[in-house]
Amino acid sequence: MTNTLFLPELREMLADNNRAELEEFCTTLNAGRTAEFMEGLSDAEVWQVLQFAQPERRSEIFGYFDEERQLSMLAQQPTDEVAELVEELAADDRVDLLQQLDDEHVDTILPLLPVEERRDIQRLRSYAEGTAGSLMTTEVAKLADRLTAREALEELSRQASELETIYYLYVVDDDNHLRGIVSTRQLVSSLAQPHRTLREMMETDVVVAMVDEDQESVAEKVEHFNLLAIPVLDSGRQLLGIITHDDVIDVVREELTEDAQRIAAVTPLERDFLRIGLVTLSWKRGIWLTILFFAALLTAFALRHYELELETYAWLVWFIPLIISAGGNSGSQSATLVITAMTGGEIELRDWRTVLMRESVVSLMLGGFIAVIGYAVAFFIAPSPSDALVIPLTLLAVMITGCLCGATLPLVFKRLGLDPALMSNPFVAGIVDIMGIVIYINVARMILSN
Amino acid sequence: MTNTLFLPELREMLADNNRAELEEFCTTLNAGRTAEFMEGLSDAEVWQVLQFAQPERRSEIFGYFDEERQLSMLAQQPTDEVAELVEELAADDRVDLLQQLDDEHVDTILPLLPVEERRDIQRLRSYAEGTAGSLMTTEVAKLADRLTAREALEELSRQASELETIYYLYVVDDDNHLRGIVSTRQLVSSLAQPHRTLREMMETDVVVAMVDEDQESVAEKVEHFNLLAIPVLDSGRQLLGIITHDDVIDVVREELTEDAQRIAAVTPLERDFLRIGLVTLSWKRGIWLTILFFAALLTAFALRHYELELETYAWLVWFIPLIISAGGNSGSQSATLVITAMTGGEIELRDWRTVLMRESVVSLMLGGFIAVIGYAVAFFIAPSPSDALVIPLTLLAVMITGCLCGATLPLVFKRLGLDPALMSNPFVAGIVDIMGIVIYINVARMILSN
Repeated sequence: MTNTLFLPELREMLADNNRAELEEFCTTLNAGRTAEFMEGLSDAEVWQVLQFAQPERRSEIFGYFDEERQLSMLAQQPTDEVAELVEELAADDRVDLLQQLDDEHVDTILPLLPVEERRDIQRLRSYAEGTAGSLMTTEVAKLADRLTAREALEELSRQASELETIYYLYVVDDDNHLRGIVSTRQLVSSLAQPHRTLREMMETDVVVAMVDEDQESVAEKVEHFNLLAIPVLDSGRQLLGIITHDDVIDVVREELTEDAQRIAAVTPLERDFLRIGLVTLSWKRGIWLTILFFAALLTAFALRHYELELETYAWLVWFIPLIISAGGNSGSQSATLVITAMTGGEIELRDWRTVLMRESVVSLMLGGFIAVIGYAVAFFIAPSPSDALVIPLTLLAVMITGCLCGATLPLVFKRLGLDPALMSNPFVAGIVDIMGIVIYINVARMILSN
Repeated sequence: MTNTLFLPELREMLADNNRAELEEFCTTLNAGRTAEFMEGLSDAEVWQVLQFAQPERRSEIFGYFDEERQLSMLAQQPTDEVAELVEELAADDRVDLLQQLDDEHVDTILPLLPVEERRDIQRLRSYAEGTAGSLMTTEVAKLADRLTAREALEELSRQASELETIYYLYVVDDDNHLRGIVSTRQLVSSLAQPHRTLREMMETDVVVAMVDEDQESVAEKVEHFNLLAIPVLDSGRQLLGIITHDDVIDVVREELTEDAQRIAAVTPLERDFLRIGLVTLSWKRGIWLTILFFAALLTAFALRHYELELETYAWLVWFIPLIISAGGNSGSQSATLVITAMTGGEIELRDWRTVLMRESVVSLMLGGFIAVIGYAVAFFIAPSPSDALVIPLTLLAVMITGCLCGATLPLVFKRLGLDPALMSNPFVAGIVDIMGIVIYINVARMILSN
C-alpha cells in the first residue's frame, strides 16, 4: 500500500533540512503509518528521514518496511549507523534480518555492537530454521518468585521499555528454571493485595515450547491455548526466551500457503513470488512436472495397448479428455478436502474409516448425477443408445475411483510419516487418469461386444 | 488430542462425589489441559465435573472444548445451569455459540441472564457474519483521558477481572468517542512519573476497524501493524468493542483454507469436514463438477471435429492425455502461485506485466525441458523421427499456454472484483485442455502434411 500523499512535502523538508518538521513527522503518526508514507522515497531518502527519529522509534519505523527493503537499506548505508539501528531492533527480528545478509557484511556490523547484544545475536543465529529457537526473542520479563505484587510491578516498570511484550511475567528461580507464570492482568488485579507474592499468584502448569520443537507444533499450542506468548525452554528447563503471537500468525500463514502450493505440485517458495530467481522457480516447478510427465506417459502406453478398440470404435476417443478430467477433478476435490481437514486438525488418521465411508456416499451421488448428464450427451454422439451406455457407466466408476484415491492417498502419506500435502492434486489426477483409461476401455469391451 | 490418562480416576471421583478432589482437578491444571483430560467423558459427566469449578473457571474450561461438543452440552443440560455458564463466557464467544443454537432454545436461556448481558448479546447478534462487529467483544478497558498513570492503574485493577485483555487501554471522552490508546507496557513504564495523565501519554493516531468492515481487511491491519487487539468503532467513531489476536488467527486460517478449497473447485465448507451433511457436501462439490463437465464437453466436440486426422494418424490419440495433463499441470502451478501471492499481499494487480514476463520465461524453460523428454519418447512411438516432432512442439506450445492462462485468469478475476481463487485449478485446466487439443491437431496438420 504505497501512499504518495506526503512525498513532495517530505522531499521538501529533506531539501531544506527542516529538523523540526522531520522530527514531528517521525513522532506524531503511528510508526506503521510513518513507514507507509515513506514507501515512495528512495532507500537513501528513507534513511535520511530516519536519522531524525529517536533510536528506539527509528528501529520501530524501520521494522514496518518489507524485508527486501530493509535488506537493501542495511546493505547500502554507513556501517556505524546500521549497527546503531540493529542494536535497537527486537532480538528475534534482527536475527532474521542478519540471516539474510552476506556473512561478510554481518562481520563488519557485529563488532560495532555491545558485547552482550553480539552474544545474543550469535546464540539466536545458531538455532535451525523452523525450530522454536529460530522464532523466539530473548527479551522477556523474568522475575523472582519471592517478589510481592507491588515489588513485581516496580521491577516490571524498570524492565518494560526494553521488552517486546510484558503480557506474561515469567517467574524463575535462581538458576533460571521456569517455575510459573503470572499474567499482567492477574498482577494488576492483585494490586488490592499488594503483599501477595508471585509464588502465591503464579500458575505452575505452564504450556511451554522446547527450543528444538518444530514451529508448527508451537503454533498449534499457541492457537489451542489462546496464548499471547509461549516460553521456550532448553532440555534442562531453563528459560531461554519467548515466542510472541505475531510470529505465530506468520507461521500459520506460511504453513497454509505452503500446503496450497504443495497441493498444486509446487515445492513451496522460500521468497516472495516476484523476487524468487526464475531458475529456482523453474526448478521447484520442473521437478514435479517431470515426475508428473513420466506418470502421464503410462496413459500413452495404455492407449497404445488398446489400439484395436480405439480404431474399431473411433467415437470412444472423443470422450477420453472428458472422462479423465471428471476423475481428476473429483479426485482433486477429495484430496484437497482431506489435506485441509488434516492441517486444520479436523480429522486424524484414525478417522480413515469414516472418511472413506463418507467419500463413498458422496462419490455415488456425484458420479450418479454426472453420469446422467453424460448419458444425455452420449445419446446423441454414440452410434446407438445402448452403445452410449459406456459413457455414464465409465463416468460413475471413474468418479468413485477418483474420490476414493483422492481421499486415501493423503491418508497413506500421513501414515508413512510424510507431509500429506505432497500427495498433490496433479499426482492424484495422474493416477486417476491411467485408472480411468483402463476402466473406460474395459467398460467399452463389455458393453460393445454384446 | 484425547487424553485418557485420568478417565478412570475422574469417573471414580464422580461416583464417590468426592468434592475435594474434583475441585482440585478443576483448579490445579491449566484450563486447556483440564478440558483435554475430560474429553473422553460423556457430556453429562463433563457437566457434572464442571459444577465443581468456580463460575469463572468453569466457563474458561468449557471454552476449550470444541464447538460441536459445547453445543451438545448446552442443548442437553438444565437451562438455569446453562444460563449461569453463558453469563461468564467471553462476550464474543458466547454470541458465536448462541448463533449456532436453535432460536427456541436461545429464547429460554436469555430471560435467565441479567438485563445488561442480555442486551449485550442481542446487540452483538445483530452484526452480519464476516464483519468486524461479529468478531468483537464488548469487554474493553475504557478510561477517561484526565486520569493520571497511578489512577489509571487503580481503575484498571478494578476492571481487570472482567476483561478478556488489558493489553491496551482505550481512552475515551465523555461521549464514548475514542481519543487515543495507551499500552499497558507504556502505563507500567510511566509509573516512575505517576502524575502524567493518560492524555499526555496516549497515542492518538490509532489503527481502528469500522463495525461493518470485512473481517479479512481487519485481519490484514492487525497483522500489518502487529497489534494485540484492534478497537471497533461505529460510523460516529464511538468505541463499540475490540477484536483480539486469537480471533485474527482464526480469520487468517479460515481465509487460507477457503482459498485452498476454492483452488480445488470446492465451495468452502462452513463446518468441519467430518460433520458437514453429505448432501451439502455433494452440492458444494457437484455444482463445480457440473460446470467443469460442460467445459470438458467442448473437448469431445473438438476431437469429433478432428475425426479425420485422428483416424489417419491413429498414434496421435495415444498422446492426448499426456499433452492435456502437461498443460493442465503447468497452468495449475501458475494459478496457485499467483493466487497465494495475491492473498499474501506479495503481488498487486498493477504487477501484471512483471508476472506475465516472468511466467513467459519460466514457461519457456519448463516447456523446453519437457519437450526434450517428450521428443525422446515420441521418437520410439511415432512412425518417423520427423513425425515425432509433433509431440515436443505441441508440449512447448501447450505449456506456455498453460502458464500464461494460469497466471492471467486469477488476475482477470481480481480485476473484475471477483475472488481470484474462484479461478480454480480445474477450471484453468479445463480451458487449457480444450486449447491443448486445438494446438495439438493444428501442429500435427502442419508437420504431418509435409
